[in-house]
Amino acid sequence: MSELRKDPVVGRWVIISTERARRPSDFGPDPVRPHLVSCVFCAGHEDKTPPEILAGRPPGSPPNSPGWTYRVVPNKFPALRIEGELEPSGEGPYDRMSGIGAHEVVIESPDHAASLATMPTDAVAEVLLAFRERVLDLKKDGRFQSILVFKNHGEAAGASLEHPHSQLIALPIIPIMITEELAGSAKLWDIKERCVWCDVVREERRGRRRLIIDRDGFVAIAPFAPRFPFETWILPTRHRSAFEDSGLDELRALASVLGDFLRRMNRTLHDPPYNFMLHSAPVHEPALEYFHWHLEIIPKLTRVAGFEWGSGFFINPVPPEDAATALREAAG
Amino acid sequence: MSELRKDPVVGRWVIISTERARRPSDFGPDPVRPHLVSCVFCAGHEDKTPPEILAGRPPGSPPNSPGWTYRVVPNKFPALRIEGELEPSGEGPYDRMSGIGAHEVVIESPDHAASLATMPTDAVAEVLLAFRERVLDLKKDGRFQSILVFKNHGEAAGASLEHPHSQLIALPIIPIMITEELAGSAKLWDIKERCVWCDVVREERRGRRRLIIDRDGFVAIAPFAPRFPFETWILPTRHRSAFEDSGLDELRALASVLGDFLRRMNRTLHDPPYNFMLHSAPVHEPALEYFHWHLEIIPKLTRVAGFEWGSGFFINPVPPEDAATALREAAG
Repeated sequence: MSELRKDPVVGRWVIISTERARRPSDFGPDPVRPHLVSCVFCAGHEDKTPPEILAGRPPGSPPNSPGWTYRVVPNKFPALRIEGELEPSGEGPYDRMSGIGAHEVVIESPDHAASLATMPTDAVAEVLLAFRERVLDLKKDGRFQSILVFKNHGEAAGASLEHPHSQLIALPIIPIMITEELAGSAKLWDIKERCVWCDVVREERRGRRRLIIDRDGFVAIAPFAPRFPFETWILPTRHRSAFEDSGLDELRALASVLGDFLRRMNRTLHDPPYNFMLHSAPVHEPALEYFHWHLEIIPKLTRVAGFEWGSGFFINPVPPEDAATALREAAG
Repeated sequence: MSELRKDPVVGRWVIISTERARRPSDFGPDPVRPHLVSCVFCAGHEDKTPPEILAGRPPGSPPNSPGWTYRVVPNKFPALRIEGELEPSGEGPYDRMSGIGAHEVVIESPDHAASLATMPTDAVAEVLLAFRERVLDLKKDGRFQSILVFKNHGEAAGASLEHPHSQLIALPIIPIMITEELAGSAKLWDIKERCVWCDVVREERRGRRRLIIDRDGFVAIAPFAPRFPFETWILPTRHRSAFEDSGLDELRALASVLGDFLRRMNRTLHDPPYNFMLHSAPVHEPALEYFHWHLEIIPKLTRVAGFEWGSGFFINPVPPEDAATALREAAG
């Protein structure tokens, strides 16, 4: 069974995933990825995934049959297991916890060649609704503190399957990056009694130099201090700490802005591999005044080296103002 | 000119490096790295680098001529510039600073095919002494708060040149990962009045399950909660917050332990690309009771995806106990 372990100095939790364990001899200098002849996520291969948890289906369509628009299934090789009790334990100065969690896959379309950039807005909205449904369901489980929705698109961005899909991991702890955002924004609230993310949205709408899209209650902006070239954040303009509190209209607007952004990105950067990651408040928090959910999108353009890993200090060759200009002009 | 920018929420500084600026059209899906016919770091090509700052030379050997054992030169494409004044400024809710710093390259050997794993211990010790010399010199410059020594070995680990070399960046700010380590270890000092790193060293020497090497005043350990497979830390067993306070004997012992570790790693993992990164106290601090310098070594074996970038939450398929066992048994 996997387990969670906490670094005693900085409090960063990691998963030691023995379910996916590899032996030292498995690490060659250039591992070859097996070529998949047949895609397990494609329509008609419903029996090749674990049974579906949720799907978009016409009335009367039985589960795990063709005819769906999206499917949510458990990850066949989960980083964490849903069954069991949380068992925190110590070892000398260290803390660990049993590897309890949920790891699900959202298959975004039956079409292998589809993508969030090219799917109709309604179909993208369905995927976002599926995210919300799954978060609302998983947050009933008192063992989970935070839920991460993310996407790896393209092999260089970590995707092991080509078919369009996102993932969702429910965790019994709060990952360090969310902890840092919570701590930083709470500190600023204490000083200013304003949400720092609301301040950022106001500043970018006023200055416009880093603004990429602004409509229907959402902005896409190049952040002031981006780690990566063309890093982009999408935020609701109205203050809201939890993604899952978004209404249907808001998710439809988000689908439209997200699709628009991805098309601009693909046009500007020639269909790059990319990741996105939803940062939302811990699931058992009430609505927080100081935290503001947002989607971080990172095209995978540069190699990250030891300096960045070892310091958390990033060298970004593209000023965000230039990135925003290019993306603004890429409308089509 | 480059500039430093600070994320308003988490306080993470980044370099926006316009010196290395790229246009959107420069990002292809698979950039091709130009093949270098002739290596600028090799003996005989001393005129192809900026003039040397420091070198290992026999008496009477003129600077920038052949005959050296190591050379330190300014980086030809520096992320930060040495000339100028620190000019902190604001922009709405944001902070920025002029991109002042030093970016140097330590050419570790005149031999293109050499490596820290195969060089004689005395030659590795010379390189470590060069790190110390440069840190001691740069810390006289009141503009710099921290100095990062790091190495990218192999293209997959971010090295753009094959010739054995390390780098050094002097910064007018403290990178977030060092800030976090300082904050975390200071908090533990407040509670326990003990250095947490000293606790970790004691625990690992007692339990031995994650201990790889223990001799001559240094340990190499697999950390309890590693982000990456085979991540390894080398720490002095005697408490010391700043690398540059190490004596000659200590650096010679470190050279021996580092070489030994790298040979074990190469044997176990088939000469992987790797990074190392020296974490040392900010340069203007007096000796700190709560901070303990250490070298973090990360073989580049797995692809890092959006989940890790977006959350700071790592899934590691190799338990550190297994990694340590393999590395212990790889002596030879």
